[in-house]
Amino acid sequence: MQKSNSKTFTCVGVNSTISIIKSNRFRIEKVLIIRNSKAEKDQKLNRALKAVNPNFIRKVNDRKLSSRFKTQGVAITFSGDLILNESAGYPNEKDSCLLVLDQVEDPQNFGQIIRTVECAGIKGIIYSKHHSVPLTETALQVSQGAFVNMKFYEVTNIRNELKKLKKNNFWVVGLENSVNASPWYSIDYSDKIAIVVGSEGSGVRKKVLETCDFIATIPMQGITNSLNVGAATSAIAFEMLRQKLEKK
Amino acid sequence: MQKSNSKTFTCVGVNSTISIIKSNRFRIEKVLIIRNSKAEKDQKLNRALKAVNPNFIRKVNDRKLSSRFKTQGVAITFSGDLILNESAGYPNEKDSCLLVLDQVEDPQNFGQIIRTVECAGIKGIIYSKHHSVPLTETALQVSQGAFVNMKFYEVTNIRNELKKLKKNNFWVVGLENSVNASPWYSIDYSDKIAIVVGSEGSGVRKKVLETCDFIATIPMQGITNSLNVGAATSAIAFEMLRQKLEKK
Repeated sequence: MQKSNSKTFTCVGVNSTISIIKSNRFRIEKVLIIRNSKAEKDQKLNRALKAVNPNFIRKVNDRKLSSRFKTQGVAITFSGDLILNESAGYPNEKDSCLLVLDQVEDPQNFGQIIRTVECAGIKGIIYSKHHSVPLTETALQVSQGAFVNMKFYEVTNIRNELKKLKKNNFWVVGLENSVNASPWYSIDYSDKIAIVVGSEGSGVRKKVLETCDFIATIPMQGITNSLNVGAATSAIAFEMLRQKLEKK
Repeated sequence: MQKSNSKTFTCVGVNSTISIIKSNRFRIEKVLIIRNSKAEKDQKLNRALKAVNPNFIRKVNDRKLSSRFKTQGVAITFSGDLILNESAGYPNEKDSCLLVLDQVEDPQNFGQIIRTVECAGIKGIIYSKHHSVPLTETALQVSQGAFVNMKFYEVTNIRNELKKLKKNNFWVVGLENSVNASPWYSIDYSDKIAIVVGSEGSGVRKKVLETCDFIATIPMQGITNSLNVGAATSAIAFEMLRQKLEKK
């Protein structure tokens, strides 16, 4: 049985609203549109809104609304199985790729990472329930709608999940800033892969690294000690994509 | 003659302060340290401060200071040749790589990009004086000190600069979201290269793309239309680095 946490979320903006409706993945609770806003006249938005029960769509005047909403002109509230837990099955296709966030703390980074890895073809993100940022509305918003095409697994113990994945023939690659690790491009990402990236401050925890099959590093070429976790994730995710596209 | 714009900038934080002092590149105007803060006791910072004229170092109580400064405990004000213009020469070594920002608008993105490409070994960033974010203190701050190892060229006309670079045997690669472009990894980045990335909204301008020798694209694998400019820059900068390291 697939357990999930059916919270209610709100996102603003035309693009996010369209993505959420089109995904057919969530229950739309409410769409608020500001009268005489750009959003109200947006043709793509209006086409997408035809799939929503008109009772849940409300036109409002802008006086009472938050400034975040005012600039965007539209806000959507939805619920559904956005966040799964460890009892849900992981994607298991031949070349599945998952991202594992070990204690990433900043919702902006989380949101950027969702957008980046969705573009690179990654289908799921595993993150720990404790000592890490939850999947907040800020993260969803920053992802610019990419989250609707992503599975999220909020788990209690990252190591246990990595062990499970290994039993299911995933190769687990941890990214660490270390001279003893292999260059990130020397690893073969063409099979089932789980890529583990760590917190902004201290990287992947030692105990988690011990569970990895490979340790990859991106050697720094300048004076800066480490990449931002979003930039590092982009580098490794698109290296994975390069390898897959070149093999085709 | 190398013309430059010797503005005064302020950055906060232990790491930025150390980087700025150690670079020997700027004139230190003032260092403010909050009494009894973590920064005051930081050994690395205190070692670095030995290179600063003690008359320019001031210990202060925290009451009157901005919250940004309060959390960090130290602020440094400096001036010097941070921003060059088109009359300054570009780096011209055998495998020089420059990044060209065509109308990037967000200082957070600019700062992240500085940090990312410094890690990838890029030595200079060219950006346009008009319709783009200037090199603000926010951008410097977000770069986490990486800016001290970067040359910045604020230019009037991006196309003219690209033409100049081509005369100096640079290959110019524009990144565009287009099905007709070549995959980003199929381009040879081992010679002198200038990589052009565009604004968050509309990408590289058509007239600028026409000046490029190659148009590269990162094909989107999901439902999202485009990568964030910082994530795209990371993908292409580390592909360049991969090619260089693999040739060694």
